[in-house]
Amino acid sequence: MQTILILGAGKSSTYLIDFLSDSCTKKERRLILADIDLETALSKLKNRTGTRAEELDSSDSEKRKSLISAADVVISMLPAFLHPVVAKDCLDLGKHFFTASYESEELRTIKPDIEAKGLLFLNECGLDPGIDHMSAMKIIHEASAKGEKILSFKSYCGGLLAPESEDNPWKYKFTWNPRNVVLAGQGASRYIEKGELKFVPYHRLFKRLETINFPGLGDFDGYPNRDSLSYRQVYELENIPTMLRGTLRRAGFCKAWDIFVQLGMTDDSFQMEMPVNSTLRQFLNAFLPYHAELNVEEKLAEAIPDLDFPDFEKIQWLGFFENRPLPETKGSPAQLLQAILEKDWQLNPEDRDMIVMQHLFEIQTKTGLKKVTSSLVSFGQDSVYTAMAKTVGLPLAIAVDLFLDGKIGLRGLHVPVLTEIYRPILAALEEQGIRFEEKVEPVNP
Amino acid sequence: MQTILILGAGKSSTYLIDFLSDSCTKKERRLILADIDLETALSKLKNRTGTRAEELDSSDSEKRKSLISAADVVISMLPAFLHPVVAKDCLDLGKHFFTASYESEELRTIKPDIEAKGLLFLNECGLDPGIDHMSAMKIIHEASAKGEKILSFKSYCGGLLAPESEDNPWKYKFTWNPRNVVLAGQGASRYIEKGELKFVPYHRLFKRLETINFPGLGDFDGYPNRDSLSYRQVYELENIPTMLRGTLRRAGFCKAWDIFVQLGMTDDSFQMEMPVNSTLRQFLNAFLPYHAELNVEEKLAEAIPDLDFPDFEKIQWLGFFENRPLPETKGSPAQLLQAILEKDWQLNPEDRDMIVMQHLFEIQTKTGLKKVTSSLVSFGQDSVYTAMAKTVGLPLAIAVDLFLDGKIGLRGLHVPVLTEIYRPILAALEEQGIRFEEKVEPVNP
Repeated sequence: MQTILILGAGKSSTYLIDFLSDSCTKKERRLILADIDLETALSKLKNRTGTRAEELDSSDSEKRKSLISAADVVISMLPAFLHPVVAKDCLDLGKHFFTASYESEELRTIKPDIEAKGLLFLNECGLDPGIDHMSAMKIIHEASAKGEKILSFKSYCGGLLAPESEDNPWKYKFTWNPRNVVLAGQGASRYIEKGELKFVPYHRLFKRLETINFPGLGDFDGYPNRDSLSYRQVYELENIPTMLRGTLRRAGFCKAWDIFVQLGMTDDSFQMEMPVNSTLRQFLNAFLPYHAELNVEEKLAEAIPDLDFPDFEKIQWLGFFENRPLPETKGSPAQLLQAILEKDWQLNPEDRDMIVMQHLFEIQTKTGLKKVTSSLVSFGQDSVYTAMAKTVGLPLAIAVDLFLDGKIGLRGLHVPVLTEIYRPILAALEEQGIRFEEKVEPVNP
Repeated sequence: MQTILILGAGKSSTYLIDFLSDSCTKKERRLILADIDLETALSKLKNRTGTRAEELDSSDSEKRKSLISAADVVISMLPAFLHPVVAKDCLDLGKHFFTASYESEELRTIKPDIEAKGLLFLNECGLDPGIDHMSAMKIIHEASAKGEKILSFKSYCGGLLAPESEDNPWKYKFTWNPRNVVLAGQGASRYIEKGELKFVPYHRLFKRLETINFPGLGDFDGYPNRDSLSYRQVYELENIPTMLRGTLRRAGFCKAWDIFVQLGMTDDSFQMEMPVNSTLRQFLNAFLPYHAELNVEEKLAEAIPDLDFPDFEKIQWLGFFENRPLPETKGSPAQLLQAILEKDWQLNPEDRDMIVMQHLFEIQTKTGLKKVTSSLVSFGQDSVYTAMAKTVGLPLAIAVDLFLDGKIGLRGLHVPVLTEIYRPILAALEEQGIRFEEKVEPVNP
């Protein structure tokens, strides 16, 4: 009898829990689901055989360690800052450890200990990071096996709305942590293009756009996402001339979002205090230079010279030109902005989200140059069974399932870039309908 | 016999040391000057009677404490992060403590202990902060005594070059810590204008300019400097509709400096690594989008739409269009930029610097509205006897002199905003030629 412990029963755990709970009814396994809210955990388990819910405040180290002791494999869906704590427990107690989050520096420092104890610590096994690594490495390894040379690799991903749920001018709602969306892109982004290192400060990021097209879905804005340079090593592409990882939004979103960035309304570095009873209009005005004669709309147009009607409409739709009360008056600009957006960008119960991912390769073959475009589109069912939860949770669930079945024999600290990890996971994801469409075109010199 | 201890014999201590060394020859005092470099300390003391140099590594707490024990008054000219350490020693050992640096949160927490021990801890007693506080409070208190109401207070200060030393297109050289100059303005700036709170993100700061004129010297760029809002309380102007503190550069400097800001070249938040043997041209190119046909100059013109010839000339003068080797290839963009500027913006021995400060008040009198402009201009003698060292060091030297003479009886934690501190200091500064010119004009409604 093998025991799986899942820590965290939040939104992105839905598919993960379903998949592994179902596996308990078929295989010699049990599942313990621990969450700070017992009711949430219970409702997600739906009384399935072999499953059990536990209430857990993650800061309660005694209870946490006792649950981990009872498990063979631990999956952490907790906020990222808690992963090192859980990982340390797993190392001490000799348990395998899985997350969909970035492999942290703290984990790298215990790599030799993980290996010495014969454990598997697999991180970055969700969507982005996760499916991106696996699907990219498949193409990279295939090219490499054929003696081809990858000249350019750009990879974009976005968590967006299915077209029929795009019912506001932004064509966007929160399907993921709102705070992360508001702060997205902060810090400088880095990539390499035709052998030239490129550094983009945050305030220019939403202007450094590439248009990415998905057949049948239309155009998206792609912008560079943080440090693409470090992935040259991860992907075994140390000398690649062009490499960029980016984020996708619906076409037009970035130009309007950039207004908030330009004005400083996404700043999270200081606390502001607007007078109580301040309005959205006054909040916007606080980021515009004083002018004795111009009104807020006119000052905005002066501050953002390329402001066009679609931008204006988006800002207006959020209520920034109205005397609507600010939901929060104290906090960082980003926190005040988030409070506004959380009201307007909330997913309705029937809304369907959409995950889009696209890899764009330029590959030198023996006979010429080819372009490989590999695209994934995944739709959610509703606001609970989201594409986000599916694409984040299923790779992790499948990895654990394969591991417990003995089909992944690897040990140590890893991200899913090795054939023996990604091949069976990608195959199982295809069975679940998560499948890339690949298009290969010759490039005329 | 009273003993003064000065910690730090660096550039900005020249006048401070001279003034207090001279006082030892006239009054019952001795001076100990401690520096990490004994030679520097010795050369500044010039063998004057009653003075003594000591070698001190400030992290050597035993030596530091032993020197502080021997003193009655301690003046810290060390880097700001060391002030809390020295202040703590002074508190423990019952010594008075003086700096030209900002009063820190750490000092505020020990305020009751300072008072209980009957000590004076006087901070912000240099130029900016220092002379700005004193000269402003004089006008504020005078207006208040007459029952007048201050409607607007803007205060600008800059450490620049005397016109005859403005021999490069930037009309700027380093007369102060280069790192602080490169990072100047980072973090959001805050002020209030006609009752409206205003927040300016760093990347828009160098566009939020006001032209400030000094008769006989011409125009300067003034930009808002950090948190002006907090000074409403310090200056007893809680309900003032307009309050702004700002920094001055020569007219045209800010527009060109903003190019570095816009491109992300002043970013200090991440480490970059340019290939060895990279050039200034390649460094600039790393912050420009890739373009297959355009050269660096053309890409720059495209990235900065309002780039004009004076901007271009400034960037060109620094060598950014040449294949000149980068002095540093590893570090934050700000560090790499600083290394370039340190070569080109170095003060020549005969260069004279210049301090400019201007307070602009709008005051409601019983009969109408008046505008009060109070301006200070101070020139250095050469690259050692700088106006910066004079205006930073003399207020501090005078404060200590007055204190030891019993002419400042105050105790506790203070900045020089109280009449009994600023009145005698301003009078003594006038004797040293540091004098504000005041112009009062009626404002026509």
